[in-house]
Amino acid sequence: MARLPTRREIHPTENMRRLIEPRSIAVVGASPRQGSFGERTLANLYAFQGVVYPVNPGYEQICDRRCYPNLRALPEVPDCVIIATPKEAVEQTVAECAALGVGGVIVYASGFAELGSSEALDAQARIIAIARAGGVRLAGPNCSGLLNMHSGATMHFLDGYAGKPLRPGPVAVVSQGGGIGYGLLQAMDRGIPFGYFLACGNASDVDVCDYIDFLIGDDRTRVIVAFMEGLSDGKRLLKVGQRALTADKTIIVCKTGRSAAGAQIARSHTGTMVGSAEAYEAAFRKVGIISRNYLDDVLETATFFAKVGRPRSSGVGVVTTSGSLAVMAADLGGDLGLPLPHPASGTRERLAKVLPSFATISNPLDTTASVLRDLGLFKECVAAMAADSAFCALTIPIPYAQPQAALDRAKFICELAADLDVPICIAWTSEILDGEATRIYEQDPKVAFFRSMRRCFEAVRDWQWREGVRQRSRQHEFDPKFAEARSQVEALLGTARSELRSLTERECKRLLAAYDIPVTRERLCADTEAAVAAARDIGYPVALKIESPDIEHKTDAGVVRLGLVEEAALRQACQEVLQTAQFIQPPPRINGLLVQEMSPSGLEIVVGARYDKQFGSVMVIGLGGIWVELLNDVSVVLPPVSTEDAVTLLRNLRGRRLLDGFRGSPSIDVSALGSLISRISKFIVDLGDNFSEMDINPIVVTGFNAMVVDALIVPSGLEATSKTKG
Amino acid sequence: MARLPTRREIHPTENMRRLIEPRSIAVVGASPRQGSFGERTLANLYAFQGVVYPVNPGYEQICDRRCYPNLRALPEVPDCVIIATPKEAVEQTVAECAALGVGGVIVYASGFAELGSSEALDAQARIIAIARAGGVRLAGPNCSGLLNMHSGATMHFLDGYAGKPLRPGPVAVVSQGGGIGYGLLQAMDRGIPFGYFLACGNASDVDVCDYIDFLIGDDRTRVIVAFMEGLSDGKRLLKVGQRALTADKTIIVCKTGRSAAGAQIARSHTGTMVGSAEAYEAAFRKVGIISRNYLDDVLETATFFAKVGRPRSSGVGVVTTSGSLAVMAADLGGDLGLPLPHPASGTRERLAKVLPSFATISNPLDTTASVLRDLGLFKECVAAMAADSAFCALTIPIPYAQPQAALDRAKFICELAADLDVPICIAWTSEILDGEATRIYEQDPKVAFFRSMRRCFEAVRDWQWREGVRQRSRQHEFDPKFAEARSQVEALLGTARSELRSLTERECKRLLAAYDIPVTRERLCADTEAAVAAARDIGYPVALKIESPDIEHKTDAGVVRLGLVEEAALRQACQEVLQTAQFIQPPPRINGLLVQEMSPSGLEIVVGARYDKQFGSVMVIGLGGIWVELLNDVSVVLPPVSTEDAVTLLRNLRGRRLLDGFRGSPSIDVSALGSLISRISKFIVDLGDNFSEMDINPIVVTGFNAMVVDALIVPSGLEATSKTKG
Repeated sequence: MARLPTRREIHPTENMRRLIEPRSIAVVGASPRQGSFGERTLANLYAFQGVVYPVNPGYEQICDRRCYPNLRALPEVPDCVIIATPKEAVEQTVAECAALGVGGVIVYASGFAELGSSEALDAQARIIAIARAGGVRLAGPNCSGLLNMHSGATMHFLDGYAGKPLRPGPVAVVSQGGGIGYGLLQAMDRGIPFGYFLACGNASDVDVCDYIDFLIGDDRTRVIVAFMEGLSDGKRLLKVGQRALTADKTIIVCKTGRSAAGAQIARSHTGTMVGSAEAYEAAFRKVGIISRNYLDDVLETATFFAKVGRPRSSGVGVVTTSGSLAVMAADLGGDLGLPLPHPASGTRERLAKVLPSFATISNPLDTTASVLRDLGLFKECVAAMAADSAFCALTIPIPYAQPQAALDRAKFICELAADLDVPICIAWTSEILDGEATRIYEQDPKVAFFRSMRRCFEAVRDWQWREGVRQRSRQHEFDPKFAEARSQVEALLGTARSELRSLTERECKRLLAAYDIPVTRERLCADTEAAVAAARDIGYPVALKIESPDIEHKTDAGVVRLGLVEEAALRQACQEVLQTAQFIQPPPRINGLLVQEMSPSGLEIVVGARYDKQFGSVMVIGLGGIWVELLNDVSVVLPPVSTEDAVTLLRNLRGRRLLDGFRGSPSIDVSALGSLISRISKFIVDLGDNFSEMDINPIVVTGFNAMVVDALIVPSGLEATSKTKG
Repeated sequence: MARLPTRREIHPTENMRRLIEPRSIAVVGASPRQGSFGERTLANLYAFQGVVYPVNPGYEQICDRRCYPNLRALPEVPDCVIIATPKEAVEQTVAECAALGVGGVIVYASGFAELGSSEALDAQARIIAIARAGGVRLAGPNCSGLLNMHSGATMHFLDGYAGKPLRPGPVAVVSQGGGIGYGLLQAMDRGIPFGYFLACGNASDVDVCDYIDFLIGDDRTRVIVAFMEGLSDGKRLLKVGQRALTADKTIIVCKTGRSAAGAQIARSHTGTMVGSAEAYEAAFRKVGIISRNYLDDVLETATFFAKVGRPRSSGVGVVTTSGSLAVMAADLGGDLGLPLPHPASGTRERLAKVLPSFATISNPLDTTASVLRDLGLFKECVAAMAADSAFCALTIPIPYAQPQAALDRAKFICELAADLDVPICIAWTSEILDGEATRIYEQDPKVAFFRSMRRCFEAVRDWQWREGVRQRSRQHEFDPKFAEARSQVEALLGTARSELRSLTERECKRLLAAYDIPVTRERLCADTEAAVAAARDIGYPVALKIESPDIEHKTDAGVVRLGLVEEAALRQACQEVLQTAQFIQPPPRINGLLVQEMSPSGLEIVVGARYDKQFGSVMVIGLGGIWVELLNDVSVVLPPVSTEDAVTLLRNLRGRRLLDGFRGSPSIDVSALGSLISRISKFIVDLGDNFSEMDINPIVVTGFNAMVVDALIVPSGLEATSKTKG
């Protein structure tokens, strides 16, 4: 799925409507020849409520429809034109569409940008230029079609769909390629309510984000499943993701192409530690997008989100007739970190009245198989658990399913679910994968159905997570108090870029200080005498460094001395580093001697960032030393982050126990550190696209204090030259 | 599923045969009453090739069968008796069976040990005693039945099975509970070839391991799926696991009850770091048992193993018509560490002859959808890839499946697979979960079918892993050269246990030294003068410790001095520690002053072990310091391990990069360290059940040398008192 790189706004909904919701459709290349794209396309429009115009100069009639020689001959300008011809005729037809004022065009033909040749790229670029100049939205080329189940505008060339009853509903699928999307769509056969399937092929004009944005505005859509390999512009995804969050519609992304990206992860810098795959995941997290790596986890998760409202609590209740499944549910809750709280006392009393004496009242609740003989008893158990506000959902794991009994129970549970305030999730463990009972569950508007208890619990966990993101995203508000600091940042980065150099450590710290971020005290000195005076003011012990825009890695260059405890040592050190600097080739510019307070020893934190072409600034937070270098123990996030978010990110680190004091070292003020990191995140946002890489390493944290000891910022257009800094 | 604790040998196959493969079956409590256990049981024996005897004094005939008043009235002694009566009649009936010389008994009734009451436990114990005394094998009580599909002896009370065609095959299922096993068994409906389903209920006489052992000896069984919550005797599982490995039959275990166990993991000691869940996993790994935590991953994995032979290489080839699925396959290979090697040059040439020019020849091989029009072309692609010895299996991911085309392709692929040397794995991504095409694949004896590409790749990965275990298990041979060392171990542990104390550090090291394990040089000295003399021989710097059987944690007690560089410091230290020891209450026995060589600084390795009631000695290997204490970064394994295995365990640690030198520290001789750990593992084996806990912490490794610096061994019956040692 090759794409031409573009930076543009999302196409407005009104501009997309004639493509996706046409009232009239012309099929250029219509044909009566069995199996041809034209023939299948006409057949697939069997349920379309509008007008279909076959277009082909070779026929006067196709089936029962009048056929037109060309688009100009049509009695009206069609909303959407499907170009089912070979690629040679595409450009001319698009030009005709543009001239006529058609609303949208779907181009099936392949052989464009996906080939990668310059001719093919040019051919695609010409088509797009024509379409855009004419205000025509174009899906494709190399597009397998657009299906609007609501109106019957199922515009595609696939075999095997024609004549099927459409049961449109709240689940929409958008996709780059067709293959995996169509495979998923086959769940239509068992009544899964899909509203749309929109493929974008080469995504030359309309892409996945345009489709998502359109669907967010569609009242009938609640969940949007998106298959993507990559994006030409990740910021568009963030934008539609944020819009979906505000509109409370769920986006589920299945992103492929992670492995190649994974291999490219550079681990040498904290700033470059974020590969493309991590940046995508950070972007998904930022806007509450549910991510699923594996295809088989997508559909049931999507239908779950289509059926549930908002979670009222963080716990899940489990009711089952099988002791073994109760144990499995407890295991899974532990595995996935999903709480299974004990029922409240009122709930326990209510259950005790109806359950046999040998049943244990707990969560998971094993009613024992005896309740199956009395569905009224089962109902009371479910109703009691559903009334317990500790549970946001009730999971009912179902074991062996004798067909008739399973069917009776399915009907019963669905009736019951209609009156409950929490969703019922069925975790079906029988190998009858598709039968009468499963279809009743799957088609019920309030019962979520899973053929995997793992998948069920993961969906509930992510439902809770997403609600947290949604609520926090409404709280986020960032004060403008760093407006002046921001102008300093721009000026300094501009200067450095014009001088083709990174910011010096001292420049970085000056900027950070403007954001209320504590840094080591230091002074640039012209000579040894000035250095001695500075050290007297700062207080021994001090560190001494040569400051030079041409020496990025000062320790490696041998121009750093640490822990100087008195004047004599400082004088000696000044002499040594100045001498060493003389031997560096080519001779560096020397700004002077930097005298610095020595930081106390403490816990080391690193914060890095890099500017990602897709998503803008990507920030990493980690523990210093082996944690980041050996274990890559970092949290990746898109800035800004609130104090609360920063604390969560710190608490998610594998070495989190170090924060609470370990082996006798004092615990640190994690909240204060979170606040500091939040300010750094605002600083990173203000760096905008003026930087390529930033590395604050380390921040030394001791008890209640935190201080930036070293920092490096590389302006955009430049790259850091090595991994060590001084 | 309560179980009475037992330590016994596995029941011999001949002793199990009349229970599992009866030629005659009596049903006590037979009944014509619809829905009763007796009625259903009779109905379920519809396909039994032997004789069925209904037994009930209330009837002379049930359906068309003559009914007998009691077991004595039967014309022969039946092989197996199903007791379908309420629990009150069970004991008497078992006694009759024993008196008559029946071979096996199945007891449905619940209300025994699973209730936990002493009456119920006693009732169960009485039944078992009677059965055992009479040489009768007993399944249950609380047993849902035994199904032998080969003979039609489907002895169970479930509704909904009677009359179904039996298609017996190589997959056997054994289970404690019935619920989840029967749910799995419903895959019979789509033709999955199950040979047996054997439930053990309360497992009072016959348990999961007895069933597995029987099935290993059954020529028709290739794969054994076992559902278990726990075992009364893990060593039996190890024994049958080893036997299955030798017989090259695959065991797949789905073990539940991991969460409660997980919570009990003690992290304070390396030795106690192994919770029960980890011990189970280590046991599974030891004998090549495939472990699956989630039910939905079990069946397809089992049928895969039933269809494949042995892997010929470690790579997987992927052939697909969908570019998107090719990308997903590459992602998955990366996620799971499954290599997807490039096709060999001969393969590439062969493919180049048939594929369209725009197709890229690689692995995954995306043939493009165009080959679907020409199945001959597709065949040539698959044949070319299958001939490439780099691949042990070919995976064909299938996207959208138009029913007729999918059916044609399924038939075609199955025909093709019959002639290939490698298994074909279908990764089906269409949401048509159960249709004509999927059934053709599932029923094919050579094509493995998965509705999840993840599951497919996991199965192939575990197939390769298991073959490695199988091959290595044949190579393992341990020399008897430590026979004398072993007698020392027993003697010393016996002494310590009789004195209710742990082994002293020096005693531990003496034992380790007998196993060619380097330890620090040291000498026990009666007084300061002797200590000075010892230090002269050992060479400064030295460490000094009080040796006392009553002080386990010497550093905490203040009776350790490290890094003594010369005689004066040693003399001073002797005085101090002797003085400190005088103030300890109650007054400890003092063996003397221990003078020790100081170990150089280096990489710290810890090796611990604890004696697990289920599996015997369980060993953990980890990196010292934060790695083990903060990250719990350990490998858990059942000893003994070969040098090669030990190296693999070290390489699996998260901190593995430390082994190769990190931040300028020298790399270590991992192979020599592996050999050392292998010797420690033999030592642990020789500790037998005479110890409860062992802790070697640390082994200091410097370049080519490794040395045990401290060690603690707690005899069985005692427990270590705290986490720090000195």
